[in-house]
Amino acid sequence: MVFPEAEFVGRMGRVQPLMVEAGLDALFLTSEPDFRYFTGFLTRFWESPTRPWFLILPASGQPVAVIPAIGRELMEKTWVADIRTWPAPRPEDDGISLLAATFRDVVGAKARIGVPSGHETVLRMPLADFENLKTALPGCSFADATAVVRSVQEIKSDAEIALIRAICTVGSNAFDRVPEIVRPGRALSSVFRDFQIALLSEGADWVPYVAGGAGPSGYGDVISPASNTLLEPGDILMLDTGAVAAGYFCDFDRNFAVGRADQAARNAYRTLFEATEAGLSAARPGRTAADLYHAMHKVISGAGDAGAVGRLGHGLGMRLTEWPSLTPTDHAELKPGMVITLEPGLQIAPGRMMVHEEDIVIRERGAELLTRRAPPELPVID
Amino acid sequence: MVFPEAEFVGRMGRVQPLMVEAGLDALFLTSEPDFRYFTGFLTRFWESPTRPWFLILPASGQPVAVIPAIGRELMEKTWVADIRTWPAPRPEDDGISLLAATFRDVVGAKARIGVPSGHETVLRMPLADFENLKTALPGCSFADATAVVRSVQEIKSDAEIALIRAICTVGSNAFDRVPEIVRPGRALSSVFRDFQIALLSEGADWVPYVAGGAGPSGYGDVISPASNTLLEPGDILMLDTGAVAAGYFCDFDRNFAVGRADQAARNAYRTLFEATEAGLSAARPGRTAADLYHAMHKVISGAGDAGAVGRLGHGLGMRLTEWPSLTPTDHAELKPGMVITLEPGLQIAPGRMMVHEEDIVIRERGAELLTRRAPPELPVID
Repeated sequence: MVFPEAEFVGRMGRVQPLMVEAGLDALFLTSEPDFRYFTGFLTRFWESPTRPWFLILPASGQPVAVIPAIGRELMEKTWVADIRTWPAPRPEDDGISLLAATFRDVVGAKARIGVPSGHETVLRMPLADFENLKTALPGCSFADATAVVRSVQEIKSDAEIALIRAICTVGSNAFDRVPEIVRPGRALSSVFRDFQIALLSEGADWVPYVAGGAGPSGYGDVISPASNTLLEPGDILMLDTGAVAAGYFCDFDRNFAVGRADQAARNAYRTLFEATEAGLSAARPGRTAADLYHAMHKVISGAGDAGAVGRLGHGLGMRLTEWPSLTPTDHAELKPGMVITLEPGLQIAPGRMMVHEEDIVIRERGAELLTRRAPPELPVID
Repeated sequence: MVFPEAEFVGRMGRVQPLMVEAGLDALFLTSEPDFRYFTGFLTRFWESPTRPWFLILPASGQPVAVIPAIGRELMEKTWVADIRTWPAPRPEDDGISLLAATFRDVVGAKARIGVPSGHETVLRMPLADFENLKTALPGCSFADATAVVRSVQEIKSDAEIALIRAICTVGSNAFDRVPEIVRPGRALSSVFRDFQIALLSEGADWVPYVAGGAGPSGYGDVISPASNTLLEPGDILMLDTGAVAAGYFCDFDRNFAVGRADQAARNAYRTLFEATEAGLSAARPGRTAADLYHAMHKVISGAGDAGAVGRLGHGLGMRLTEWPSLTPTDHAELKPGMVITLEPGLQIAPGRMMVHEEDIVIRERGAELLTRRAPPELPVID
């Protein structure tokens, strides 16, 4: 297991008072990160959409896992003691009667149940079965629990920060190897493949996310999968990765010029480096996500259209992207223990953009880098 | 793009009559595979839970994508002509007013809208925003569209089968390299990492799923991530992968004895091989998923408890696991073009199981293997 039991006891100790304050008798959690955050249940099996997994967190007492039988062996290795299973898949009753019975058992027939239903959340179970659950629990009401779950998860423990730092180091080491795999004439798809191999070789457990782009003096977007387009001299190559170790993500990118770089690309890179510096200076407790946006936006606004990506960074942890969003309208307060990315972007010309990203943790004294800082000048791969 | 436009025109031509038959004016699709199936929009960016993506398929006419602005550039490369965007993330209205306006525009203010809500589906958007959408469309009703979407997706086109065959070949080639990476004293985590590298080297675009286990004469479960346990002589190692190329999955496993194998392990392996043979013979049009279950179960039932995994195979395609399930209660008819896995399992002793898996396509004349058939006797890595 990744964490000692004390980590989970601490998480319960932080979330339960918030549940009481919000008037919730229980939380009902179905998504992989929510489920794992409170149980430690770590498996890639969530990739299979067939089976739902349910967690009930009562406002007092211990969590109860209601899960497919295939997961019992692994769940028994976690700190969760109360595990109830059904033989999934069983479409005619895929755990719903067991789940309803467990709710009645744990919080009674009349309870107010919190379900994360807001921004950045998903109910990972068939919608019709959620309706079936509500029908089976006529005395219960359901309320949005996004704020409760978010406010616990967005402050990372020292153990979590150490894991995020570790995968950021893996990413930094892999980026250092990019010059070995890039040369004019290579297909972007081969570079993506070799970059994933570099991440694994450096210690990533798996690589859920790689994106990037390449083009003369910039790239068209930042979410495309690899194409078979060949790299050409003068291309700016960007690689962005969300690699995972022990269930925690890094999320950052690096830019490289292939063979040579024109002055426009060098200038854009330098502007983004300076914008990130401004973000690093501004990122301290008491400031807001919007403050951080404005600090970076001030640097880039003179140099081009910064609106290409829609935000200039975001939270990071068990998910590739988490709350908050660095936008002008997100007034979330920065607090010690929050891990965020600084991700300024610049539109150089139509269809030509550049982005830059670092991962940091907010400390009492300010920002602490988790990634190895990108060089101040655009690196050119000869 | 992976497919020519004709592939998508064909998909629309098959789904729209089913929508009319089901009395649906439109489908509302939010999950990655459903969205990609009808658009061709292929990106790993779905790994970020921040932004929802919406697709409206009217019962007549063309699809309309209602998406975050960050996706426009990539979406414009697909066959979808009608693309409407909003600057996500915008938590105060994350596309919902645009989505409601688009529904009114495309199918009018009084429409019956199909949403996949049944087994193996998920609504990938905040639950509260789905309620907001319903409020914004007071004249519309929402109905389960699982059957409509499933019956189109479960029959693969020749182009899809070719892609699944290609990634199965990648997997087969990677499994052939396992003897190079396995030896007593190596940690399972190193083996998992090197196996993912082998998959990438052989041509996988990415590796969303690797699981496995190792233990004397069998393993405890089939969904665990890698541990740092060292392989020992006499261990049975199982590796299971869902690798992806061009957006299509393989899903199969292989077993290896480390150094030596006892007779019990050899016998279990042989039984599973024979069970798969029985599955291969039974898999033909007109039979059902349950028939296939019984054909395999007959072989393994004498040799141990076959119930460990809950089913003996499943559909495969754009998802690691799809409908149908090879269980006694799934009476889905096998049809030409369906791609499924045969996955018999055996409980050898408490905490000691063995599983075996191959991928096939149902043809008029019977089963056609997509994976390179596992050897009939347990391979021993010296």
